[in-house]
Amino acid sequence: MDREALEEKETARMEAFSDGVFAFAITLLALNLRDPATSGVSLSQGLIDEWPAFFAFVTSFVSVLIMWMNHHNMFNYIRKIDRRLMLMNGVLLLFVVLTVFNTSLVAGHIQQADANVAATLYAGTFFLLAIVWNGLWWYSTARRRLLGRDVTDQQAKTITRQYRVAPLAYGAAFVIAPFSGIASVAVILAVAGFFAITATLAHET
Amino acid sequence: MDREALEEKETARMEAFSDGVFAFAITLLALNLRDPATSGVSLSQGLIDEWPAFFAFVTSFVSVLIMWMNHHNMFNYIRKIDRRLMLMNGVLLLFVVLTVFNTSLVAGHIQQADANVAATLYAGTFFLLAIVWNGLWWYSTARRRLLGRDVTDQQAKTITRQYRVAPLAYGAAFVIAPFSGIASVAVILAVAGFFAITATLAHET
Amino acid sequence: MDREALEEKETARMEAFSDGVFAFAITLLALNLRDPATSGVSLSQGLIDEWPAFFAFVTSFVSVLIMWMNHHNMFNYIRKIDRRLMLMNGVLLLFVVLTVFNTSLVAGHIQQADANVAATLYAGTFFLLAIVWNGLWWYSTARRRLLGRDVTDQQAKTITRQYRVAPLAYGAAFVIAPFSGIASVAVILAVAGFFAITATLAHET
Amino acid sequence: MDREALEEKETARMEAFSDGVFAFAITLLALNLRDPATSGVSLSQGLIDEWPAFFAFVTSFVSVLIMWMNHHNMFNYIRKIDRRLMLMNGVLLLFVVLTVFNTSLVAGHIQQADANVAATLYAGTFFLLAIVWNGLWWYSTARRRLLGRDVTDQQAKTITRQYRVAPLAYGAAFVIAPFSGIASVAVILAVAGFFAITATLAHET
Repeated sequence: MDREALEEKETARMEAFSDGVFAFAITLLALNLRDPATSGVSLSQGLIDEWPAFFAFVTSFVSVLIMWMNHHNMFNYIRKIDRRLMLMNGVLLLFVVLTVFNTSLVAGHIQQADANVAATLYAGTFFLLAIVWNGLWWYSTARRRLLGRDVTDQQAKTITRQYRVAPLAYGAAFVIAPFSGIASVAVILAVAGFFAITATLAHET
Repeated sequence: MDREALEEKETARMEAFSDGVFAFAITLLALNLRDPATSGVSLSQGLIDEWPAFFAFVTSFVSVLIMWMNHHNMFNYIRKIDRRLMLMNGVLLLFVVLTVFNTSLVAGHIQQADANVAATLYAGTFFLLAIVWNGLWWYSTARRRLLGRDVTDQQAKTITRQYRVAPLAYGAAFVIAPFSGIASVAVILAVAGFFAITATLAHET
Repeated sequence: MDREALEEKETARMEAFSDGVFAFAITLLALNLRDPATSGVSLSQGLIDEWPAFFAFVTSFVSVLIMWMNHHNMFNYIRKIDRRLMLMNGVLLLFVVLTVFNTSLVAGHIQQADANVAATLYAGTFFLLAIVWNGLWWYSTARRRLLGRDVTDQQAKTITRQYRVAPLAYGAAFVIAPFSGIASVAVILAVAGFFAITATLAHET
Repeated sequence: MDREALEEKETARMEAFSDGVFAFAITLLALNLRDPATSGVSLSQGLIDEWPAFFAFVTSFVSVLIMWMNHHNMFNYIRKIDRRLMLMNGVLLLFVVLTVFNTSLVAGHIQQADANVAATLYAGTFFLLAIVWNGLWWYSTARRRLLGRDVTDQQAKTITRQYRVAPLAYGAAFVIAPFSGIASVAVILAVAGFFAITATLAHET
């Protein structure tokens, strides 16, 4: 294989590995939903009482889905990888995987007095994830280190600007969390919804 | 990479992600089967008593398998993707993932008085999934937006007609569920069986 | 894409889906290992007492691994797929997924009076899997339906003969199981070991 | 397909399968984190008390991630596979999968009197993994059996030397474990950190 083919093969394998982690994490979220059988109320009432679990499930599912979509999109521009990028991508995946645990924590505590603790961890993880994400992109674009040859500087800059929204929004959710857990989770859901709607309106690949 | 190669790479990555979720969801279904060790009867009797869990496992496994096969088939026609399609596909996967939870719910309640509640959720999720599926296909085919160049309008129309069966059948299962949980699940198994047999007779790729 | 490219893409996607299920099932086996913390003995003693779980884990892991290797090998010969093959492959995967549950059952009961019930289910599932496997191969080779053009009839026949070993061996394990659970599991481990050693000696790809 | 294309396809499928297991194992690690809800202290205190679970999670995550990166790198040099390699790779994956169980064991016992037992198993598994890894590499490079044609002997030798570090380091962790569980886990984390930092400084793909 020539150098370019090798680079593409490597990038493809890292994307595949990341896709695997995204896909498993998103599916594992379903394990946070529980049969309310033992709660002593009727099944329908039990399921309704369990609304925080469904709310947290949908919030996390949509958030991870949007991240996967953006990850996917990012690697239309990044065409080479090196070991530093692989490491940063690994740390990013660590935070994605933590979402599974955080979601169960939020679902279990959102209606309790300690909802703010769970929400702080939840929002904090997303915030760190957004920081790593921007670091990864900054590393890849600095001196066009890992960009595809056909990517224009203009395109790269547009994306840099788009990515800046996430740390700000998740940072806000993190700051709000100690005061109101539910408001913090609502902000995170709103972020996901915002990206989803923007994506739909923008209508670009 | 030229535009067409990029489009194919993107579509391939979305298929791979979807395959991951399908494969993982189908495997997680096995976690709904439990060792009846603590039920106080003999193991063989315990396993026989657990028939609803096996029944729900097979129903869900075959249903998800058929969906995967049709998803696979659909992307022989859809050769491009955009962000709206990715979002719709994501919602579709959300319902696939929910099947894991719904199956455990049906398995745990099918022999009880509240079987209809569990079955309503089970059938309702499949119904919504079928709606999203048809929406996704409609979006992709409208003005041939995302179809491959070599796909004829006739082929697209044939598939449109085939896909219409699913919302009707799952809608029926949803309507039946409040009256008889077991009848509703039986309809869903029959739908999967019908698609499986049709596929076998039709004998097309 | 031309017809051959499309066929290869489809086959590749089915292989990828199967690989996903094999990989998840093999990894989920690890969930059958439990921390013996609550058993009231020292950790080292607890882990030693848990030997059936490790024995069952290794037996299942190696069995599924060998199956994956043979599945992999089989699709060097099968180069086209149709919907019937996809269905048969799906049923095959259903039995692979059931192995996760069966392994936990064997691990939990192998030292008890009802070991034979667990082993019968375990061996029976492998037996059915072997039957479906042979059916799938028979279907693919009959009138060279799905074979690659460069595959010789001689090669196909050699494989047909090799595959006949599995139903016989698993059938034996199934017949033995009602009399001795441990002997039945030992046969299954021996089968995996036999295939592993043969593969190593044969030294073919 | 010609011979070389077939070889690459086979190698790619084994890489994909391995990636699946790596990705799945790394994601399952998250299931070892538990909601401390029932421990009777406040949520924030409960999460702080649970630090060993987070410590073990990060140690295992980074270790498996580094292994995946090295596995990825190794298959830039190994371009053909045979059944013996597949088997050795399978045994390697068995140890990777065991990490999920070992991590839960270490997390549950690191603060108790029997921490050394858990750590011995944890370090011992990584030690065996490193042995198998070196065996696999030795097998692939001996008489250049499975190396790509463009790989120089010098490159192969450099890697052989790098790989020797792992059994030594994990062997040390294994020897330390019976005396101090926490010191042993710290060594394993240090190994992962060392590889991560080296990789970052070396800055090669």
